[in-house]
Amino acid sequence: MLLFNTTDSDFKEKFSELLGRGAMDIEQVSEIVKNIIKEIQSEGNEALKRHIAKFDRWEVKEDSDLMVDPRDMKKAYDKLSSELRDALHLAYDRIRNYHEKQMPKSWIDFDKAGNTLGQKVTPVDRAGLYIPGGKAAYPSSLLMNAIPAIVAGVEEIIVTTPTPDNEINELLLAAAHLCGITKMFKVGGASAIAAMAYGTQTIPKVDVITGPGNIFVATAKKLVYGDVNIDMIAGPSEIGILADNTAIPEYLAIDLLSQAEHDEMASSILITPSAELAESVRELVYVELAKLEREMIARKSIEERGAIIVTETMEEAVELMNRIAPEHLEVVTANPFDLLPHIKHAGAIFLGSFTPEPIGDYMAGPNHTLPTGGTAKFYSPLNVENFLKKSSIISMSEDGINEIGEACALLAKTEGLTAHEKSVRIRLK
Amino acid sequence: MLLFNTTDSDFKEKFSELLGRGAMDIEQVSEIVKNIIKEIQSEGNEALKRHIAKFDRWEVKEDSDLMVDPRDMKKAYDKLSSELRDALHLAYDRIRNYHEKQMPKSWIDFDKAGNTLGQKVTPVDRAGLYIPGGKAAYPSSLLMNAIPAIVAGVEEIIVTTPTPDNEINELLLAAAHLCGITKMFKVGGASAIAAMAYGTQTIPKVDVITGPGNIFVATAKKLVYGDVNIDMIAGPSEIGILADNTAIPEYLAIDLLSQAEHDEMASSILITPSAELAESVRELVYVELAKLEREMIARKSIEERGAIIVTETMEEAVELMNRIAPEHLEVVTANPFDLLPHIKHAGAIFLGSFTPEPIGDYMAGPNHTLPTGGTAKFYSPLNVENFLKKSSIISMSEDGINEIGEACALLAKTEGLTAHEKSVRIRLK
Repeated sequence: MLLFNTTDSDFKEKFSELLGRGAMDIEQVSEIVKNIIKEIQSEGNEALKRHIAKFDRWEVKEDSDLMVDPRDMKKAYDKLSSELRDALHLAYDRIRNYHEKQMPKSWIDFDKAGNTLGQKVTPVDRAGLYIPGGKAAYPSSLLMNAIPAIVAGVEEIIVTTPTPDNEINELLLAAAHLCGITKMFKVGGASAIAAMAYGTQTIPKVDVITGPGNIFVATAKKLVYGDVNIDMIAGPSEIGILADNTAIPEYLAIDLLSQAEHDEMASSILITPSAELAESVRELVYVELAKLEREMIARKSIEERGAIIVTETMEEAVELMNRIAPEHLEVVTANPFDLLPHIKHAGAIFLGSFTPEPIGDYMAGPNHTLPTGGTAKFYSPLNVENFLKKSSIISMSEDGINEIGEACALLAKTEGLTAHEKSVRIRLK
Repeated sequence: MLLFNTTDSDFKEKFSELLGRGAMDIEQVSEIVKNIIKEIQSEGNEALKRHIAKFDRWEVKEDSDLMVDPRDMKKAYDKLSSELRDALHLAYDRIRNYHEKQMPKSWIDFDKAGNTLGQKVTPVDRAGLYIPGGKAAYPSSLLMNAIPAIVAGVEEIIVTTPTPDNEINELLLAAAHLCGITKMFKVGGASAIAAMAYGTQTIPKVDVITGPGNIFVATAKKLVYGDVNIDMIAGPSEIGILADNTAIPEYLAIDLLSQAEHDEMASSILITPSAELAESVRELVYVELAKLEREMIARKSIEERGAIIVTETMEEAVELMNRIAPEHLEVVTANPFDLLPHIKHAGAIFLGSFTPEPIGDYMAGPNHTLPTGGTAKFYSPLNVENFLKKSSIISMSEDGINEIGEACALLAKTEGLTAHEKSVRIRLK
C-alpha cells in the first residue's frame, strides 16, 4: 500500500496516477458489444438464447424459460430465516423512507398578468434494472435499484439478471418478491442491456436502464444511451477517507479493506495530516488483510491501488479529496460537519466514527449506486429523479401575451424566423 | 401534408412512420467523429486549427485567435438598438426567474436515534455550452443554456461556437455579454465537443456539455458521454398540437409552420377529433406557406413530415400524443387544463389559444432546449439540475449504529463480504 507525502518531490506524478484510477477501456470491447446489440435487435429471443447457451451454459427451450416464475420468488421469501427477513424488511423500509424524501413535486406559479408557468413531474412508463448474478449477486443491489423506481411511481419495473448454469441466488429472488417485482428475466451482460433498450418477443422495451455491471454492461449502456436513458456509466468501487488524529486506526483499516474486498480494481485512499495515523492504519491494513475471506482480491486491490497520503493541513487534504471526487467518502475527524461545506465532489459522504461505509451499502437509507472514477464531479447517486422526467408548463393570458409579445416577435425576426414572429403577432391586439 | 383518420385501414402503418420521425443515423458519422475526437485528444490546439481551416475557412495564427475578445461582446451589446436590448433583457429576466424556481436545496433530516441523513447539492465546477453559429446562430440558445448554469452557481462557464469565415453573429456576442460570459471560443462541430470534454492548451476541460447541434455534434456528445455529462442527444425540432373545434385554425396553421421553418427534418403534427378543423388548418397551412421567408425549408418539412390526424375522441387524441411524446405540445381546447393530468410525455406543454409555441422559444421563461424524437419519454427540458449534482449525507450516532448494525452485518455476511461485516461489527457495543 503506497504511503506518500504531499511534500515528496514526485507527489504530482503519484497523485495523477490516483486520479486516473477509474479509466475503463470501453473502446476495447466496443466492437464485440456492438455486435451483440445488433444481434438482439435483429433476432430478439433467438439471439438471447444463443448468448445464454454460450455465456451462462444452459439451454433455453421455450421463450417462457427466459422468465423467472414469480412463485419461486415467493417461495424463496417464505424460506428466509426470520433474522434475514427482518433485515431485508428493515433495509427496504429505511431505503424507501429516504428516497421518498427525494420525490419532487409538480409545481405551478402565477404572475400579475394572469400567466401560469410550471413544471409537471411524471414517472417514465417502464424501467429496466440490471442486477449482476452468479458469484457477484447482490440482493442489496435489487433493493437499491427497485425502490427509487417504485417511489417514482413507475408503472412497470422489469429486472434482468444473468443465471450461470441456470441457477439463481435465493436471496435475490426473495428481495424481488419483497419489492413486488413480477417480471424478472434470466439474461445477463450486454445482451440484457440491448434486450431492455430495444425489446424482444419476451422482454419489453424500457425507457430507463439502471444498475451496475462489468465492462460489457457499461459499454452496452453507453451504446444504447440516447435511445433510452441510463443512470450512469460505473466503474470499480472506491473509498476515500479524510481523517485526523482523533480517528481510530482499526476502524479506518477495515473500512479501507471493505472496498478492497469488492474487486481487484477497487481503490482505497486515506488522506490525513497525521503521519502517525497514516503509519498505524497502513500496518493494520496488512494485519486485517490476512484474516479476510476474500484476501486475494483485497490484497491485489490494496497493493496496486491502495494509497495513504499525508498532507500538511486538513485544508490540503480536503482539496486533494475534491480532486479525487471519490464514490464513497468517510470524514472521520473531531468535527466532521465542519468539513461538509468544503466537500464539493463525492458520491456519498459518511460523517463520523460511527458511520462506516458498509452501513450505506445496505441499511442507512441513501442509495449505494454511486458515481465512480471521479464522475462524482458531474453525476449524482441513483435517485428517484432517474425514473422521472419533467415537462414545462406554459399558459399565457391575453394580457400576458400582449405584454411580452412584441419583444418576442422582435427576437424571432432578428433570428430570421418569420413564422415564429407571425405566430406571436397574430395573437396581439 | 398528410391528413388521415384513426379509422383508416392503414392507420397503424402511417402512425408508426410518425413515431420513427426522430431516428438519427449516428452510426453513419460515428467513425468520422471518433477520429476528430482522437485528433483533439492527441494534438489539442493544432488539431483545432486544422479543423477550423477546413470547415470554417479561416486561418488561426495564434492560440489566442481561438478566443473571442470579451471587449467585442461589450461593443456588440452597446451597439444594440434600445428595442432589441430591452427585448434581450426581458427574455433574460423571465428565463432567470423561471429557472430560479427550479433550484433544489440541500437538505438534512433526523431520526430519534440521533442519525442525520440528507443530500448535498453542489454545482459542477465547469460547464461548456455549445452554441451553433453561422446561418443558424441563435442568440436565444445562448440565454437558454447559460442561464440555468448561472442559476446553478457554476463557477466557470465557457462557450464554443463555430465562426464560418471568422465571422460571428453580433447578437450572439451581445447575449454573451449580457450573461457575463468571458470565455467564448471560435470552434464548432465535433471538434468543439471534444475540446470541451478533454481540454486543449487553450480550452479548459469541462464537467458538463450542453447545447444543440447537427448530427456531428450529437454524435460527439454521445461519444464523450461518461467522461463528461451531457444534457441530452437532440434531433430535429417538432411540434404536436391537440385541438378541438374551439381552436382558431389560422393560429394552428402558423404554429405548425413555425416548427417547419426551422428545418426540413422538423415535424409538425396536429391531432384533433374535429374533421372540420383538420381540413381548414390544412388549407391554411398551404396559404401561409407561400408567404414565408423560409418557404423552401418549411414546405419540404410540411410535405414530408407534416401530418394531421383525425380521431374519434379527444381521449384517443391524447393517447396518440402520449405515444408521440412531442418536443413541443400545444393544447388548444376549450379547457386545456383539464387535459394536463392526462398528458404524460412532452418536453413543454403550451396551454390555450394565447400560448403559441414561439413564445416559449424566447420569452415565457421555461427552457427551449427540449427532448426531441420521442425522448420526452425519459428526458427533461434543460434545467438547473443539468449543472448540479448531489452527494448523499450519512451520519450515524452510536445509538443509531447499534440499532441497525446487526441487521446490516447479517446482510453483508450473506453476500459474502466479511470485511463489510466486520467494519460494522467492530463499532457495535
